[in-house]
Amino acid sequence: MAVLAAHQVHRDRSSVIPENAPVGPVDAVRVPRFAGPATFARLPRLDEVSRADVTIVGLPFDTGVSYRPGARFGPGHIRAASKLLRPYHPALDVRPFGAQQVADAGDVGLNPFNISEALAETERSLIGLGQDGSTLLALGGDHTLALPALRALRKLHGPLAVIHFDAHLDTWNTFFGEPVTHGTPFRRASEEGLIDLERSIHVGTRGPLFSKEDLDDDQMLGFHIVRADDYEADGVRRAVERIRRRVENAPVYLSIDIDVLDPAHAPGTGTPEAGGLSSRELLNTLRGLAGINLVGADIVEVSPAYDHAEITGIAAAHVAYDILGLLATPTS
Amino acid sequence: MAVLAAHQVHRDRSSVIPENAPVGPVDAVRVPRFAGPATFARLPRLDEVSRADVTIVGLPFDTGVSYRPGARFGPGHIRAASKLLRPYHPALDVRPFGAQQVADAGDVGLNPFNISEALAETERSLIGLGQDGSTLLALGGDHTLALPALRALRKLHGPLAVIHFDAHLDTWNTFFGEPVTHGTPFRRASEEGLIDLERSIHVGTRGPLFSKEDLDDDQMLGFHIVRADDYEADGVRRAVERIRRRVENAPVYLSIDIDVLDPAHAPGTGTPEAGGLSSRELLNTLRGLAGINLVGADIVEVSPAYDHAEITGIAAAHVAYDILGLLATPTS
Amino acid sequence: MAVLAAHQVHRDRSSVIPENAPVGPVDAVRVPRFAGPATFARLPRLDEVSRADVTIVGLPFDTGVSYRPGARFGPGHIRAASKLLRPYHPALDVRPFGAQQVADAGDVGLNPFNISEALAETERSLIGLGQDGSTLLALGGDHTLALPALRALRKLHGPLAVIHFDAHLDTWNTFFGEPVTHGTPFRRASEEGLIDLERSIHVGTRGPLFSKEDLDDDQMLGFHIVRADDYEADGVRRAVERIRRRVENAPVYLSIDIDVLDPAHAPGTGTPEAGGLSSRELLNTLRGLAGINLVGADIVEVSPAYDHAEITGIAAAHVAYDILGLLATPTS
Amino acid sequence: MAVLAAHQVHRDRSSVIPENAPVGPVDAVRVPRFAGPATFARLPRLDEVSRADVTIVGLPFDTGVSYRPGARFGPGHIRAASKLLRPYHPALDVRPFGAQQVADAGDVGLNPFNISEALAETERSLIGLGQDGSTLLALGGDHTLALPALRALRKLHGPLAVIHFDAHLDTWNTFFGEPVTHGTPFRRASEEGLIDLERSIHVGTRGPLFSKEDLDDDQMLGFHIVRADDYEADGVRRAVERIRRRVENAPVYLSIDIDVLDPAHAPGTGTPEAGGLSSRELLNTLRGLAGINLVGADIVEVSPAYDHAEITGIAAAHVAYDILGLLATPTS
Amino acid sequence: MAVLAAHQVHRDRSSVIPENAPVGPVDAVRVPRFAGPATFARLPRLDEVSRADVTIVGLPFDTGVSYRPGARFGPGHIRAASKLLRPYHPALDVRPFGAQQVADAGDVGLNPFNISEALAETERSLIGLGQDGSTLLALGGDHTLALPALRALRKLHGPLAVIHFDAHLDTWNTFFGEPVTHGTPFRRASEEGLIDLERSIHVGTRGPLFSKEDLDDDQMLGFHIVRADDYEADGVRRAVERIRRRVENAPVYLSIDIDVLDPAHAPGTGTPEAGGLSSRELLNTLRGLAGINLVGADIVEVSPAYDHAEITGIAAAHVAYDILGLLATPTS
Amino acid sequence: MAVLAAHQVHRDRSSVIPENAPVGPVDAVRVPRFAGPATFARLPRLDEVSRADVTIVGLPFDTGVSYRPGARFGPGHIRAASKLLRPYHPALDVRPFGAQQVADAGDVGLNPFNISEALAETERSLIGLGQDGSTLLALGGDHTLALPALRALRKLHGPLAVIHFDAHLDTWNTFFGEPVTHGTPFRRASEEGLIDLERSIHVGTRGPLFSKEDLDDDQMLGFHIVRADDYEADGVRRAVERIRRRVENAPVYLSIDIDVLDPAHAPGTGTPEAGGLSSRELLNTLRGLAGINLVGADIVEVSPAYDHAEITGIAAAHVAYDILGLLATPTS
Repeated sequence: MAVLAAHQVHRDRSSVIPENAPVGPVDAVRVPRFAGPATFARLPRLDEVSRADVTIVGLPFDTGVSYRPGARFGPGHIRAASKLLRPYHPALDVRPFGAQQVADAGDVGLNPFNISEALAETERSLIGLGQDGSTLLALGGDHTLALPALRALRKLHGPLAVIHFDAHLDTWNTFFGEPVTHGTPFRRASEEGLIDLERSIHVGTRGPLFSKEDLDDDQMLGFHIVRADDYEADGVRRAVERIRRRVENAPVYLSIDIDVLDPAHAPGTGTPEAGGLSSRELLNTLRGLAGINLVGADIVEVSPAYDHAEITGIAAAHVAYDILGLLATPTS
Repeated sequence: MAVLAAHQVHRDRSSVIPENAPVGPVDAVRVPRFAGPATFARLPRLDEVSRADVTIVGLPFDTGVSYRPGARFGPGHIRAASKLLRPYHPALDVRPFGAQQVADAGDVGLNPFNISEALAETERSLIGLGQDGSTLLALGGDHTLALPALRALRKLHGPLAVIHFDAHLDTWNTFFGEPVTHGTPFRRASEEGLIDLERSIHVGTRGPLFSKEDLDDDQMLGFHIVRADDYEADGVRRAVERIRRRVENAPVYLSIDIDVLDPAHAPGTGTPEAGGLSSRELLNTLRGLAGINLVGADIVEVSPAYDHAEITGIAAAHVAYDILGLLATPTS
Repeated sequence: MAVLAAHQVHRDRSSVIPENAPVGPVDAVRVPRFAGPATFARLPRLDEVSRADVTIVGLPFDTGVSYRPGARFGPGHIRAASKLLRPYHPALDVRPFGAQQVADAGDVGLNPFNISEALAETERSLIGLGQDGSTLLALGGDHTLALPALRALRKLHGPLAVIHFDAHLDTWNTFFGEPVTHGTPFRRASEEGLIDLERSIHVGTRGPLFSKEDLDDDQMLGFHIVRADDYEADGVRRAVERIRRRVENAPVYLSIDIDVLDPAHAPGTGTPEAGGLSSRELLNTLRGLAGINLVGADIVEVSPAYDHAEITGIAAAHVAYDILGLLATPTS
Repeated sequence: MAVLAAHQVHRDRSSVIPENAPVGPVDAVRVPRFAGPATFARLPRLDEVSRADVTIVGLPFDTGVSYRPGARFGPGHIRAASKLLRPYHPALDVRPFGAQQVADAGDVGLNPFNISEALAETERSLIGLGQDGSTLLALGGDHTLALPALRALRKLHGPLAVIHFDAHLDTWNTFFGEPVTHGTPFRRASEEGLIDLERSIHVGTRGPLFSKEDLDDDQMLGFHIVRADDYEADGVRRAVERIRRRVENAPVYLSIDIDVLDPAHAPGTGTPEAGGLSSRELLNTLRGLAGINLVGADIVEVSPAYDHAEITGIAAAHVAYDILGLLATPTS
Repeated sequence: MAVLAAHQVHRDRSSVIPENAPVGPVDAVRVPRFAGPATFARLPRLDEVSRADVTIVGLPFDTGVSYRPGARFGPGHIRAASKLLRPYHPALDVRPFGAQQVADAGDVGLNPFNISEALAETERSLIGLGQDGSTLLALGGDHTLALPALRALRKLHGPLAVIHFDAHLDTWNTFFGEPVTHGTPFRRASEEGLIDLERSIHVGTRGPLFSKEDLDDDQMLGFHIVRADDYEADGVRRAVERIRRRVENAPVYLSIDIDVLDPAHAPGTGTPEAGGLSSRELLNTLRGLAGINLVGADIVEVSPAYDHAEITGIAAAHVAYDILGLLATPTS
Repeated sequence: MAVLAAHQVHRDRSSVIPENAPVGPVDAVRVPRFAGPATFARLPRLDEVSRADVTIVGLPFDTGVSYRPGARFGPGHIRAASKLLRPYHPALDVRPFGAQQVADAGDVGLNPFNISEALAETERSLIGLGQDGSTLLALGGDHTLALPALRALRKLHGPLAVIHFDAHLDTWNTFFGEPVTHGTPFRRASEEGLIDLERSIHVGTRGPLFSKEDLDDDQMLGFHIVRADDYEADGVRRAVERIRRRVENAPVYLSIDIDVLDPAHAPGTGTPEAGGLSSRELLNTLRGLAGINLVGADIVEVSPAYDHAEITGIAAAHVAYDILGLLATPTS
C-alpha cells in the first residue's frame, strides 16, 4: 500500500538512525515530493507517533475576517506548499524534524457560522493537544484564533510575551458591536490578562489607522512597535535587537499574520497593505531570535484564493519551518 | 485530536447504521468540508479499514506527456476538488460510499526520471492493491499509466473491454523512438493482448491527426469510435447505446482522459483540443452505463497548473464519483 | 464635473425622448463603457431619481456559506461586469431600462460576524426599499439572503411561488446546529409559510446529496424539480413548459444561484457542481418565462475571487438584464 | 543549427513525399511540439517557400476596440496555441497543410496610435500578400481590420458574400463621432459596396443592442441573421443549411470574431456576451460549409490577457485549422 | 436606502466632530469595507460636498500606450483597491481625509479612438475641476495624460517642478511619427515651457534605452535622475535628499508611473522593467517629501488585466493615500 | 511581406550605421514591440546573419525536474518577455546588440522521454553552434542542461570557473538512483573535471537542505557560497567583491537558475524557496561583474505555467540582456 510503503521507505533508511529517533518526513529520494501524504512537510500524522514534541494543527476558520475571506482554506494550502521542505536548516544549523518529534494533528472541525462556538472549540482542542507538554504550532485560519490560543496557553504557562508580526495592530475594539474578530484578539487578550505586557511587541506594522488613538490605546495596552518603515531605515539586525531586548527570557507566543509581508510576497491574504516586509527580512528576523523561550506559535491569514503559484503558501511554510527550527534550538 | 475527532463524529452518528456498514466520509455537518483529511471525498485511508471493495490510488507521474506536463500533481488536485461530494447519488439512486467500502490508498511513489521503472512500479503496486479483489480506481498522472494498469488487470480478469474517453486515439506508435508514452498505451496494450478488441471503443475523439493511417491503424487494432462531433449530431442517448452495444457484458476497463472534455470544461490538462464534450454530457454518458461489468478505471491527464478555480478538478472528482456509483450499481 | 457631465450627456440626448421618460444609463457613445459610474449598467443611483419601478440592491454578505466564501464581493463584481449591457433586449423585444425606471440603491451594510443580525437588517432594508411598490432585484451575497427577502416580500404579496435555479435544493436542515445558512433558506421559508408550495420548483438541480431523504423532504415541502440532466435529455423548451405549468399566474419570486451554471460557465462561485447548465440554456429558459407575474428576484453566490475574466460576472449581469426584461414585459 | 535542423528533419522524411509537395510543419515526432519555430502550426515562414497557396498573416492592432483592449497580442497568442495542430483533418478528410502550401508571413507593423494610418497599411499589405493569388487568412487584432481586408479583397474578387460569426452585428454607426472602429466595419463596408448584400449573413448574434433600429438598419443593409438562440432551439444542422442557402456559390469572406463563442469557451476577448456558441458548435458549423467558395478569412478579437490556459487561443487555432481545411476542400 | 444610510451612519458619528468638518469616508465600523460606494476610499462624490480641497478624478484612457494596453480600466481598479484605507496616516501624523475635504469627481469621458481629442478634453476637464483652487489628483490611464495635466496646471501655477517616478524617462520623441504618446509627455511639456527644468527630476529610472542620446537629450531638457540602482547602492534616505534639494520650494507636480515599482510589486502595468523599487521604498520616499509645495499629481499606468490579487491596485491606492497625506501636511 | 519589411525598416535606418555593423532588433519606432518576429529581443535568426558573436539557443527540456515541471516552455516564454529590450544598456554603457552580432538559433529538438539522449543531443548541438567561436547563451529548460553545456564548453576552454546563481546547491547525488537530474549537474561536472574548483562559487543559496553533509560535500567539491542571507546582511557590493575575488581572470561559465530570485520576483519556477534575491539585487550583481572573462551562460528553470504577467519571464529576459551587456564589455 502506497502511503504505508512510503513511510516504510523512511524507516528502512533509519537503520543508521538511533532506534528511538523521531519519525521524520517521507523520504524524498524514493517518494517524489509531489506525491505522498498531505501532512505538513509530509511528516507523520499525530496518530502515527507515540507522542509529539511539537504538534502542528490546522484551524480552518475565517468568520472573523473584515475584508477578503478565504483563510478557512489556509491550513491545507500551507501544507501543500510545505512539500519542498528538507530536513536540515543550514542558517540555524539544526534538524527541525530530527531534533524533536514533529507531527501533524490534522484540522480541528470549527463551526463557520458562529464565532464564539468556534473559539470555544479551538481553545478546548488546543488544551487537549498541548496537555502532554507538546508545543503547538497552529496554522490558521484568521487572526481571531490567536485569542483562544492565548487562552489555552495562558493556562499552561501564565501570561505570555507576544511577538506579533502583522501589518496591523489587531488591538482594535469592535466592529458592528462584535468584540471578537480578527482585528481585536490582542486587545481582548490584554483585557483578559493573557499577555505579559512588559514583554510584548508588534513587528511590521504599517498602513493607515482609524485614528491616532489606535496607537495610544495600543501603547497603553503595553505593546512596543517595530514598524515596517523601521526595516527600511535600520534593517533586520536592529529589528532583531529590539525584539530580543523586549522579550528577554520570558515564555514567548509568536503570532505571525502573513500580511506582515508585502503584497508582492504574500498576495494571498485578506487585508493586504503595501510597504511590507520581504520574505527574506521576515525569515532573517526569525533566525535572529534563536534562543528565545518559545512556547507556542501561529501562522494566520493565508487566503489561498488570492495566492498565485503558492507564493504566499511557500512563505508561510518557510516561516513554519523556521519556527520549528527555533524550537529545535536550545533556549539561550 | 482533530482528525481522529472528525472520524469519531462520523462514527458517533453511525449508531443508526448497522455495525459492519462501510466507513464513509467525515461527517460534513460537524466537520466543515473545507477541513479534514485530504483523502478522496474525505473517505478513510486504506489502512483505516479492514478491507476495501474499491481502492482509490494516486499515480503521480507525467513523464510520458508530449506537451504540457503537470499531471504529476493530478491526484492531489482531484482529491482537493472532491470535498463537496456527498453520500447519495440521485441519478443512479445509489450510495457510492455506503453500498461498498471505498478507501484511499494514497499515492504510489514513482520515479519521474525513468518511464519503464515507473511503469513497472505502477503495475506491481496495482497488483498488490487489487489482489484481494478490490476494484481499483486510479487517479493519474498521465495516460501512459493505462498500460501498466491494463497489464495488472489482465492478470486478474483476462483481456478487457476498454471504454476509452479521450480527445485522442492514444494508439500512436512512437515519439523520438520511444514506444511507451501517453500517446501510445492502447497500441501497446493491443499488441500485448491486454484488450478485448471486439468490445472496445473510443469516445469523444476529435481534433487533427497525424494522418489518415492513424484511423486505419486504430480500426485494425479493433477499436470503434464515438466522435465528439457525434454528440453534436446525435446526443448522449445515442452515444450510450453505441457504447453499451459494443461492450455488452464483457469485463470493462474505463479509461477517462479528462481532455475528452472541452477546454472550457477542462482547461487543466496537457493536450487540449477544442470542440469537446461538456461535463454534463460526460456524466450523463457514464450514468447511461449503469449495469456494465466494470472491473477497473482510471482518470488521467488532470494538470492543475493550467486549471482555474478547480473547474477541471471538480469535473474529474465528479467523474470519479460517477464511477463509484457505477460500481455500487448491480451489474445488469 | 465628470460623472455629472456624463449624465448630462445622456439628458441632452433625451430631447427626442418624452419629458417624463425613465432616466437610463450613461450614454456609451459619449462616455466609454469602461468609464463612468459603478452602478449596475451605469444606471442612475436611487437617490438620483424620484422613484424607481425596479430597485437593484446589493447584499454583500457571505457568512452563511459552507465552502468557498467570497460572495460578499459579489454585488460590486456583478455591477462591474454589467457595463456592456445596452438598452434594447432583442429576444424579448423590450427596453428594460426604458419601459420602466430602474435604479441602483447601492449596498446594504450587513454585519459579517452575525447571521441573524444581518438577516434582520436585510429584511428591514428590503421592506424599506419596496414599500413604495418598487420591485426588488437583489444582488448577493450568499443564498441565506433569500430567506429575509422572502420574509420581506411575503408581507407585501402573501406566499410566493418560487422558481429556484440552483445546483442544490437548499432545503437542508442544519449545519453545526445552525438553522439559517446558505443550504437551508427554502426549508425555513417553507416552515414559515412564505412560499406557495403548490407553485414552486427547483431548476438545474444536480450533484450528490446527503441522502435520499433530501429528495423526500424536499418533495414533502412541496417542490417540483427540473434537473440539470433533464436539460440534456429534453432541452430548454420542455423545461420552460414545466416551469410555466407549475407557477401559472401566481406571484413569483425568482431566486437564481449562479451555481446552476456549469463550473465552465460560472467558476466564480462557492459550491460548484459539474454537469450544470450553459449560460445560453439559463438565459433561454428565462426568456421563455415572459409573461409570468414576477414580484421579486435575487442573483446570489457570485464569488469573484474564483472568477476569471468576469465569466461568472457577465453571466450574472446578463441574468439580471433578462430579469429586468421580464419585468418590462406585460404579465400574460 | 536548431531550427534549421528541425526543418531538415521534416525534409528528410519527405523522401516518400513527391518532390514538389508543400512544405509542412516541423516534424513533431522528432522536434517536440513545445519547441520549434513560432509560426502558425510550426509551418514554414513565407520567405522559406517559393509561393504560398494560403498565407497566414498577423495584424496586431486593437486601437478600434470600445471595451477591453489587448487583441494586439492576438496573433502571437493564436500561433502559440496552434502547436498541437496535426496534419490530417478527419472530419473533412483533408490534409490542410499537405493539399496546399500554407505559410506564415509574420506580422504587419501597424501604427497603434492612428486608426486610419493602420487601416491603410493593412490594406496595402494584404494587397501585396494576395497579389499572386494567395488566399489570405488574417489573425487579428480587432474587428476594425475586416474593413481594410474587405477593401483589399474587393479589388481582387468584386463584392463578397460575408459570413460573419460574432456576438455583435458590427454594423453600428459611430462612437465619439469616429466612423471606423471595431463596431462598424460591416456598415462601412456596405456603404463602400464591398459586400454582396444578397449573400451575407451574421451568425451567433446575441445580447443587448442599442435600440431596435440596430436590427432594422442591419436588415436594410441586407444582412440575414442566425442568432445564438437559434442554435439552442434548432441546432447546428439547421444553422448550416441557412448559411449555405444564403451564400450559395458566391465568393465568400469569412469573418470570425471569437466572441461568437460563449465566454466559457472564449474568455480572452474584448466584449464578451453570455449565451454564446460552444467551440464544438462553431467548428461543426464550419465543417458544414465544406464546398463553399472561400476567398479570404479573418479571426479577430482574441485578447490574451483575459485568456486562461489558452482556452481562447486553442479555439481560435482550431477555427483557423478548419478554415484551412475548407480551403483544402474542393469547391462544390 | 443603503448608500444613503451608510453616509448617515458617518454623519451620526460626527456629533463629536465640528459642524463644518470635512465629510470623510463611509464608516467602516458599520458598513463593511467590502460594501458601499465605489468612490476612492469610499469618500464622498464631488457632487455630495459643497467644495473639495482635493479632487480625485479618473482619466480612463490608454490609447497612448506602446505595449500592453488596459490602463483604461485603471481608475476603477485603484478605487476598488482603496477600500481598506483608514483615516489616520501614522507615518505623516495627519488625517488625509480629515484635515481637508477630499472628494471623488468620477471619470472624465475620453474618446479612446483619438489621442488629441482625448487630451483636449482632459485639459478642459482638469481646468474645470481645478478652477476653484481644488488640488487635483488624477488616476490614469496612461502617461500621455501627464501632458494635458501639466498644460492645465501651467495656467494656474506657471511652470512646475516635476518629480517623476517612472522606470522610463518618457522624454522620447516620436513613435510612428506620433509626437504625443505615453513615451513623450515630458519632452512635449518641456518644449511647451510647462516644466521648471531647474527643479525637475526622474526617480526610479532603469532598464534599456534606445540609445545613449536618450540620456543626453534628457539632460539637455534639464532633468536630473535618481536611478533605481541608486536605491540599491544608497537607500531611500539619500534619494529623498537629492529630490528635496532639487525641487526646493517650487510648486511641484508629482507624476507617478506605477512601473517605477518592480514587476513583483506592480505586475499590472504596461511596460514593466525588472529591477525596480519595492512598494516600501516608494512610500518611504514619498513620506520623505513632507513639506514640499505640491500642487497636483497623477498616478498612471495601472493595467488591471495584468494585476493579481490587487497587488498593483493596492500599491497605487497607498501611493494616492500618501499623496493625500502630503497635501494634508503643511508646506515647510 | 511583413517580417521582411520589418527588417528592411531596420536596415533603412542603418544609413548612418557603418556598412558591416551587426544586424540588430527590428526597429520599434516603426514595428510595435507587441508585433514582429518571436526571436529573443526581436533579433535576427542565426540563419539571417553570416556569423554570430553571441548565439542564443533554446533548450526546451524539463524531464530532469523533481517538483513542478514546465520549464520546457521556458525558451519561448523568455523570448516573448524580451520584446521590450531596447538597444542601449545605460548601467554598463554598452550597446549589447550593437557592439557584437547577437542572433537567435531557435530551439534544439530534445527527446522529452529520455534524459541521456536529450543530454547527448544538447552537447552535440552546443558544440555545433559554438565551434566557430560564437559565445553561447542557453535559455532553458531545467538545470540538468548545465551538465552538457559544461561538457561542450570544456572541450573548447578547459575547466571553467562557474558562477552559479541558484537557491540550491545542485550538487546532490541521486534521486531514485538517477545520477543526472536538475539537482546534480555540478556534482557530475565536478566529477568529470569540467569545473575549475578553485574559482567556482554559488550565489543566492538558501532554504532547507537534506543534511549538513550537503554543505560538506559541496565544500569538498570546492565551491564557495554567497548565501541569500548574506545579501540581507551585507548587500550587493560585498557579494560582488566576493565573486570577483573568487573567479579572477578565469574563463567563466555563468549559470543562472531563476529560482535564485525570491518567489515574489520569480513565481514561475519549479522549486521555489522563500527568502531569495530581488531582481534588482541580481541585476546589480551581474553589472558588478563587468570585465570578467565570460565564455558561456545559461538561464534555466523558468516555468511559464506558474508565471503571472511575465514577472518571471521579464526578470529572465533582463538577466539575459545583462549577460549580453557583460559580453559586450571588454574583459578587464
